[in-house]
Amino acid sequence: MCMDYDKLVKEFGAERFEVMPDELKDLRMAKYIVSHRDFLSISKKPFAIVSGRGPSGKFHLGHLATFMFVKQMQDKYKCRVFIPFSNDEKFLLRGISFEDAQNYAMDNLLDIIALGFDPELTDIIIDLYNLPQDLYNLAIRVSRKITYSTVKALLGFTSETNIGLSFYSAMQVAHILYPTMKYGLPSVVIVAIDQDPFIRLTRDIAEKLGYHKPGALHLGYIPSLQGEQKMSSSSPYSAIFTTDDPETVKKKVMNAFTGGRETLSLQKEKGGNPSICSVYAYLDLFGADTEQIKKDCVAGKRMCGDCKKELITLLNAFLDEHRRKREKSKNLVRKFLK
Amino acid sequence: MCMDYDKLVKEFGAERFEVMPDELKDLRMAKYIVSHRDFLSISKKPFAIVSGRGPSGKFHLGHLATFMFVKQMQDKYKCRVFIPFSNDEKFLLRGISFEDAQNYAMDNLLDIIALGFDPELTDIIIDLYNLPQDLYNLAIRVSRKITYSTVKALLGFTSETNIGLSFYSAMQVAHILYPTMKYGLPSVVIVAIDQDPFIRLTRDIAEKLGYHKPGALHLGYIPSLQGEQKMSSSSPYSAIFTTDDPETVKKKVMNAFTGGRETLSLQKEKGGNPSICSVYAYLDLFGADTEQIKKDCVAGKRMCGDCKKELITLLNAFLDEHRRKREKSKNLVRKFLK
Repeated sequence: MCMDYDKLVKEFGAERFEVMPDELKDLRMAKYIVSHRDFLSISKKPFAIVSGRGPSGKFHLGHLATFMFVKQMQDKYKCRVFIPFSNDEKFLLRGISFEDAQNYAMDNLLDIIALGFDPELTDIIIDLYNLPQDLYNLAIRVSRKITYSTVKALLGFTSETNIGLSFYSAMQVAHILYPTMKYGLPSVVIVAIDQDPFIRLTRDIAEKLGYHKPGALHLGYIPSLQGEQKMSSSSPYSAIFTTDDPETVKKKVMNAFTGGRETLSLQKEKGGNPSICSVYAYLDLFGADTEQIKKDCVAGKRMCGDCKKELITLLNAFLDEHRRKREKSKNLVRKFLK
Repeated sequence: MCMDYDKLVKEFGAERFEVMPDELKDLRMAKYIVSHRDFLSISKKPFAIVSGRGPSGKFHLGHLATFMFVKQMQDKYKCRVFIPFSNDEKFLLRGISFEDAQNYAMDNLLDIIALGFDPELTDIIIDLYNLPQDLYNLAIRVSRKITYSTVKALLGFTSETNIGLSFYSAMQVAHILYPTMKYGLPSVVIVAIDQDPFIRLTRDIAEKLGYHKPGALHLGYIPSLQGEQKMSSSSPYSAIFTTDDPETVKKKVMNAFTGGRETLSLQKEKGGNPSICSVYAYLDLFGADTEQIKKDCVAGKRMCGDCKKELITLLNAFLDEHRRKREKSKNLVRKFLK
């Protein structure tokens, strides 16, 4: 599966950054920003960030990287962050049990809280756990503006789609407009680019309800360890989960797809290719000195084994710390689920 | 508009009472019970009553009579009563403003509380005001079992129907199953017979979710003062509202359709026809000695003016008392909206 971002951006009518804004370019996720909507105008004044989580499994490093980015944005802009957990959608879409839909949400919640979000500036809502009345009311107001034929055309629903999933479109729009309704702040949605149809739907509804149209930062996918474009929770060697123990992390990294040559001597002669290397991508995301690594790799002075060892050390130190924070997060849940 | 109850009962596959059960026959609304589903089996053990209110205007005597019946059922069976207010549906269906959907609910709530429901045994939920998380969760579980093609076939929705209204089908099913989910009590729904499609849908879903199938008591309509089969909130002389002042009540009753003859002398000679008389119907519902009235009317010994005078006195005394209780209800709202 290879996503053609250029095609999507063009098809969706989103904007490219001609020059990456200063505030974003020093963030490690900046290179994953594919496109945006109205970010430059909205970010001039106070705004809120909306970035949801659809909990259908455990948290992996791809999920974590996105929310690390959201947290960095909160620090940079001192902005309100709203994190809706759409476990209703996952229950309706995936056929998981109701209990799993709740358990995954509670589990993932700890990973997010562990990243250090400011509880005063962060609202987390789990649709099937602490849905506020005013969010349901907003979803109802939104739903009056959306016909079945709209969701059919936009999202590919059929007459056999359950009515919960159709209604969830309204709930998702309500998630995006919630900070605007509640605090009068325009929303910037941080989201994978393939979710843009919801942004377009929301911009349309926002206008009808008299709210500020939401903006967006569209993210591309963090590559999988196997070199696919996107990490998959179902393929065991594709993703590292936040709860993986050091030995598992080691195994997965040792099996990872790299940009190295077939043999050591070829690598020394011709150099590797960091741009397709999943190990390089993770070293970059988790804070290694990749400028030097890149030079050495391309020059044939650094072997894949060195990078893998460095990544194993880096990730295990990071995850060790993350798991400690994750344990402490259990005491903070109430602060976030207001 | 004349509803053919026989046809509906047959078409819907509901049951007629061969003999009206003792517990019901002494209730003044008994003659409005058209049919039922499983009432005789469910009422042998503890059960809950569900009877909803769709607040799209002020309360009139037709609404009041239904809830007086529900209250009498609570007294008789000491049963739990659940009264869901579907102001979400009214907002989605009627195009009323969001504010009106809330205001009508709060207004109608006072009329219901004024009837003397036991707060310990009565749950009132206004969907857009105090929707409990567990009711939303139940609606989501229900919605996974209903496709768009089902609501299309059952309720006549089209692709231009808004997705909120489609989803409301799941919410209504959840309303009916709520006491079963929450307290383990099978529900008996007290409802106008034309709402039976929702009962059938709920019985189907209940089975799929492993809940006891709800039963029902189907009510026919209280006639309008103008002799139509159903009171209408939009036709000013058709219904008496609980907030009508004594002078208005007098005017409406004086204008009411009766079973009387064209002239006094013809009435004395041939007698009147109580079975088509709206004034007689209201005297009956609000506790007059209708056995004697009927005899005298048919015998030509009682004129329509007498009946109208008696009804004006009766209703104004009743409404005077009701409005007093309605005022006091304002202090009880919190007890019911748990």
